[in-house]
Amino acid sequence: MFDYVEKLKEFIRFPSVSTDSKFKEGMQGSQRFVADLLGSLGFKVEVVKTQIHPIVLATRGGDPSWPHVVIYGHYDVQPADPVALWKTPPFEPTIIGNRIYGRGAADNKGPLMTNIAAVAQLLEENPKIALRITFLVEGEEEMGSPSFPKFLETHAGRLREADFVYLSDTALPNENQVVITCGLRGLALLDVVVTGARVDLHSGLHGGVLRNPIQALAEICATLHTPDGSVNIPGFYDGILDVEPWERAELAKLAGDPKAYMDFLGIDAFYTPPGFSPFEAIRFQPTLEFNGIGGGYQGEGTKTVIPSRAFAKISCRLVPDQEPDRIKRLVRDAILARAPKGVKIEFVDQHKGDPYVVVPPGRPNTPKDQSPVLARAFRSTEAAVTAVWGRPPLFLREGGSVPIIADIKKATGLDSVMLGLFLPEDNLHAPNESFNLDVMKKGVETAKRILSGITTS
Amino acid sequence: MFDYVEKLKEFIRFPSVSTDSKFKEGMQGSQRFVADLLGSLGFKVEVVKTQIHPIVLATRGGDPSWPHVVIYGHYDVQPADPVALWKTPPFEPTIIGNRIYGRGAADNKGPLMTNIAAVAQLLEENPKIALRITFLVEGEEEMGSPSFPKFLETHAGRLREADFVYLSDTALPNENQVVITCGLRGLALLDVVVTGARVDLHSGLHGGVLRNPIQALAEICATLHTPDGSVNIPGFYDGILDVEPWERAELAKLAGDPKAYMDFLGIDAFYTPPGFSPFEAIRFQPTLEFNGIGGGYQGEGTKTVIPSRAFAKISCRLVPDQEPDRIKRLVRDAILARAPKGVKIEFVDQHKGDPYVVVPPGRPNTPKDQSPVLARAFRSTEAAVTAVWGRPPLFLREGGSVPIIADIKKATGLDSVMLGLFLPEDNLHAPNESFNLDVMKKGVETAKRILSGITTS
Repeated sequence: MFDYVEKLKEFIRFPSVSTDSKFKEGMQGSQRFVADLLGSLGFKVEVVKTQIHPIVLATRGGDPSWPHVVIYGHYDVQPADPVALWKTPPFEPTIIGNRIYGRGAADNKGPLMTNIAAVAQLLEENPKIALRITFLVEGEEEMGSPSFPKFLETHAGRLREADFVYLSDTALPNENQVVITCGLRGLALLDVVVTGARVDLHSGLHGGVLRNPIQALAEICATLHTPDGSVNIPGFYDGILDVEPWERAELAKLAGDPKAYMDFLGIDAFYTPPGFSPFEAIRFQPTLEFNGIGGGYQGEGTKTVIPSRAFAKISCRLVPDQEPDRIKRLVRDAILARAPKGVKIEFVDQHKGDPYVVVPPGRPNTPKDQSPVLARAFRSTEAAVTAVWGRPPLFLREGGSVPIIADIKKATGLDSVMLGLFLPEDNLHAPNESFNLDVMKKGVETAKRILSGITTS
Repeated sequence: MFDYVEKLKEFIRFPSVSTDSKFKEGMQGSQRFVADLLGSLGFKVEVVKTQIHPIVLATRGGDPSWPHVVIYGHYDVQPADPVALWKTPPFEPTIIGNRIYGRGAADNKGPLMTNIAAVAQLLEENPKIALRITFLVEGEEEMGSPSFPKFLETHAGRLREADFVYLSDTALPNENQVVITCGLRGLALLDVVVTGARVDLHSGLHGGVLRNPIQALAEICATLHTPDGSVNIPGFYDGILDVEPWERAELAKLAGDPKAYMDFLGIDAFYTPPGFSPFEAIRFQPTLEFNGIGGGYQGEGTKTVIPSRAFAKISCRLVPDQEPDRIKRLVRDAILARAPKGVKIEFVDQHKGDPYVVVPPGRPNTPKDQSPVLARAFRSTEAAVTAVWGRPPLFLREGGSVPIIADIKKATGLDSVMLGLFLPEDNLHAPNESFNLDVMKKGVETAKRILSGITTS
């Protein structure tokens, strides 16, 4: 039988850091590993060149009457920095107890290997299974998938033949509860740069004459929220889809403890938009956050300058149907309208991503024209999770963003079934990343049941 | 004859950044340079140890019936950051036209060398001149002179024997107009640090739940001024001395052009307290400025974190009789009172300095008990400036701070005659600092006349 733990070890050994050109070899090795592995399972493998890191596209099964699943994953990983904080070498997979440690173990090599293992075992058990599968494994996820839109332009036709996308790149709230992610927040990012005098000035020789750009920036930023926790930009909340009662009810089943969450964060007060609990706010509401601010002297001690320039990095998380370009425009317009006299305002445009939502079958707001195979996939997923984990999954939106999911939907019409496999304690993007091998085992069994479940209507 | 330009070059080559321990060697070199130079001129040199950087004390002349001048200067400089903006290396003195470029060229190495040169040439011309001189050259001015109060405790007795302090660490409004600085603003500095969650958070997984410390900081900072340009802190303006009509009249002689000043600064609107022109605001009004702000991700591109922490560096410039400790308390109280819930506020206390004012002889508010030598010094200064520069000096307060001047007054009763030598275009505390060598030449001649002038009553 396909030994997925050994294969996962091999996979982790490639230091496939996509954002750092020093890791070119690791990226090539990781990409080849995926291509060879899928080839060895009988897939027809195509390596699609992009501007940076190629995309592996691997297909199996040719009968157009079979259900067709696109399984998404990524072979790149986050940088391992700060390496000094790792207890085991980040690219030397190490099993301790029921966990495998290594950069990428949970994001996304472990979950991707889970789904490859499920397919491998299904094919071992029934080589003639009436299922078309296309693996789509990219190498730029940790860079924000810059080549993906162009890839979609040229390959949307092929993907459009499929019925849905299946992936495991989201989270489980705990080891006993599976979540099927039915929504992702979008993103709209920009920097605002405020300039006062043409150079930094001595605060004694010139202080009292002009508006300090830090002050102007603070005055602007202070206007962007209301005291009650809403974003204070006209039109920001326009066109947001109502949260369905079933979504709130589903979330209530998670039974999060606000006090425990407050302790986890280390804060003594929440600041959520009115009408939303903290757990609801993350999933159902948009945000405007300041990810960074800078200007003037930031070292120890003092330097009595009036800086010429100050900036803030702003990111909005968006919910359906907020449109990233429109939100960026509203933010820019509000800032320009509120900027005091005597300073210059400029913007640096950053990236963006559409929000995404998919409604499982049988809900009051399920689209009437939902594809029967997608509906079957959701039912099959519910049944598989219930059988393997002993309790049904929850169907929830989450606060994070996977912009390619909305991009795929826009370009091909395909929705995604997202079964989370990593846990809060897996330390994604942090030192000592690991993946729970018990979760992996259940994940393989679950994916096998989901995929075989959709072959029978 | 004493070649002061060559000596100044030597002096600038020492990277004497007092606030950064990486520059220890540069500080030691700069201190030794001053001690050796004064020693070579026949001064009895004492290097007084302090907690951080020593003070050079050098004396000449022993007859207690002679007038006794303390000449003050400092051998430390501001950091050169951001070094990338310098057109010449900051610690490699470079003469272009009539200017010498380098960190510290104008603040204070050039002006200090001007006064050393005047003394050197006077002694060359008349080795028996009936003048006692004490050079007092410190190395912590750019740190706020933290060791100076302690130095005064132990050495006030020696200084108390003197008649007045002479220094050039203030500004000329333009190349043709000398200003004798009769007032300095004080300082009250502190950092405010705002902490939200215990660690940086993923803005997708947790965004919408808590108040971002950058937002809280912006909200706090935005409250500290009124739209009309005043500091918005209760009690801030209490106890400020009225500006004398002769002071406004003297300033009016400067005939500053607001439009030209606006162009110099590169702004399109002033922001001054009500009732004060920009030129008056700098000299007669206190300020609250933000010298720096920082928090979260400040690199290129994006990183979608909610930072745990953000901070701002605040400095207030004070006018007589504002008291720095009281002002710090008012600022802290206002910030604490205005801080939103859900964040923690902490302060880092920084240095402070009292404001200072001295009234020249013959004004309506001249103290009746003004010392005759001080009065003679002011008259000698007026005559010397008029002779060398072709027009009399203006007697004005200025916006900068030299806190030790008030400290010396408090500890010894000595007032200071401050003859400005640096120009607005000298870029103090900024990249491409320089000093005008024509001004230096006139400065040497002026100082010679002032010093010899006080030897004859």
